[in-house]
Amino acid sequence: MSNRSKVRRLPKRASYDRATIDAILDAGLICHVGLVADGSPVVIPMAYARRGDELLLHGSSASRLMKALAAGGEASIAVTHLDGIVVARSAFHSSMNYRSVVLFGKARAILGEEEKRAALEALVDHLIPGRAAELRPMTPNEVKVTTVVAIPIDEFSAKIRFGPPVDEESDYALGAWGGVVPLRIEAGEPLGDGRSDATVAVPESVHRLRLRFDEVPS
Amino acid sequence: MSNRSKVRRLPKRASYDRATIDAILDAGLICHVGLVADGSPVVIPMAYARRGDELLLHGSSASRLMKALAAGGEASIAVTHLDGIVVARSAFHSSMNYRSVVLFGKARAILGEEEKRAALEALVDHLIPGRAAELRPMTPNEVKVTTVVAIPIDEFSAKIRFGPPVDEESDYALGAWGGVVPLRIEAGEPLGDGRSDATVAVPESVHRLRLRFDEVPS
Repeated sequence: MSNRSKVRRLPKRASYDRATIDAILDAGLICHVGLVADGSPVVIPMAYARRGDELLLHGSSASRLMKALAAGGEASIAVTHLDGIVVARSAFHSSMNYRSVVLFGKARAILGEEEKRAALEALVDHLIPGRAAELRPMTPNEVKVTTVVAIPIDEFSAKIRFGPPVDEESDYALGAWGGVVPLRIEAGEPLGDGRSDATVAVPESVHRLRLRFDEVPS
Repeated sequence: MSNRSKVRRLPKRASYDRATIDAILDAGLICHVGLVADGSPVVIPMAYARRGDELLLHGSSASRLMKALAAGGEASIAVTHLDGIVVARSAFHSSMNYRSVVLFGKARAILGEEEKRAALEALVDHLIPGRAAELRPMTPNEVKVTTVVAIPIDEFSAKIRFGPPVDEESDYALGAWGGVVPLRIEAGEPLGDGRSDATVAVPESVHRLRLRFDEVPS
């Protein structure tokens, strides 16, 4: 825990445990990457994957953001899951249940076709576990036009809120309702694009994908 | 559209239309706020509300982040909805369907008890529409210990991907499945906290809350 990764507001909600951090990262699909560009902050949503002690990001080699990251740019990256709306008995204690991770670190470019290829497979397998093995290999050009960077997971914090509202004692006496509306991501039936023969089955990886969201705690 | 709010990657996915921006902002509950602190980027998830041409944020008056914003700090703010997993016939075209907005602007502190009170009511009503009218008024101290800032919505862009994968023509011939797994947020049954008499009904605002997520396009 560094000075900037220390959670100061509501420190009882904070965690610096790697297993907790990893579970939050592994359950998400989109991160928000913050950079400084010309002295100003920029936040962009991106796909990611955790691979061991690193977070992998990728994008077009022509992207300004990816160029800044590949040049060793400093980033702050947040992954947040919204788990519920906390209906308190006052505006002040109205809240959300969530799990979030914030990382800080300098990106390093992943270079070399084989290293990039492995990282890109980790990215597609984070999005759709088991998918890389079902697909044709990436072409050398597909690998070439993609920039891949890794951010070390070593300066981080998690912040988690769960459970019912915490109201003022005097507000419990008002006779108002208090509780939580749980929220979760629901995956619908896979929708084929009509470009395959009707006899082509939905792949295993896509069937398993729906289970992924059933496993996320609400 | 400013230079920094111009979408350079995949510009066909970009929108600068205020109605599009507002619909994305109004459908979300969590934004990611990027700031520059001591020269380094920091990204933090926060609740927010759109009120007209401004985005409202609030937090403890003791928070470093809120102090930086209230002092006129420059921010970049992103709101992202994940709408589906795009299952392409190659790793390269594997993707997500999403709607996202990125804003840039300088925050201004909302001062004065009545102005702060109105903004805090807008925040609770964004979280749970109609809730402010059901609750007791905020106490002067609750208003006092909360910092509220507004960011103008005037430098922004949206980026939206929807629909099926866009595969290489040669990959359609491979006989593999391609399509989308739609994702949406599902609200569960409201869970009372057991601190109200069993005869106390779930409030109207909480009943309506569940409809909110049914309205989000998938």
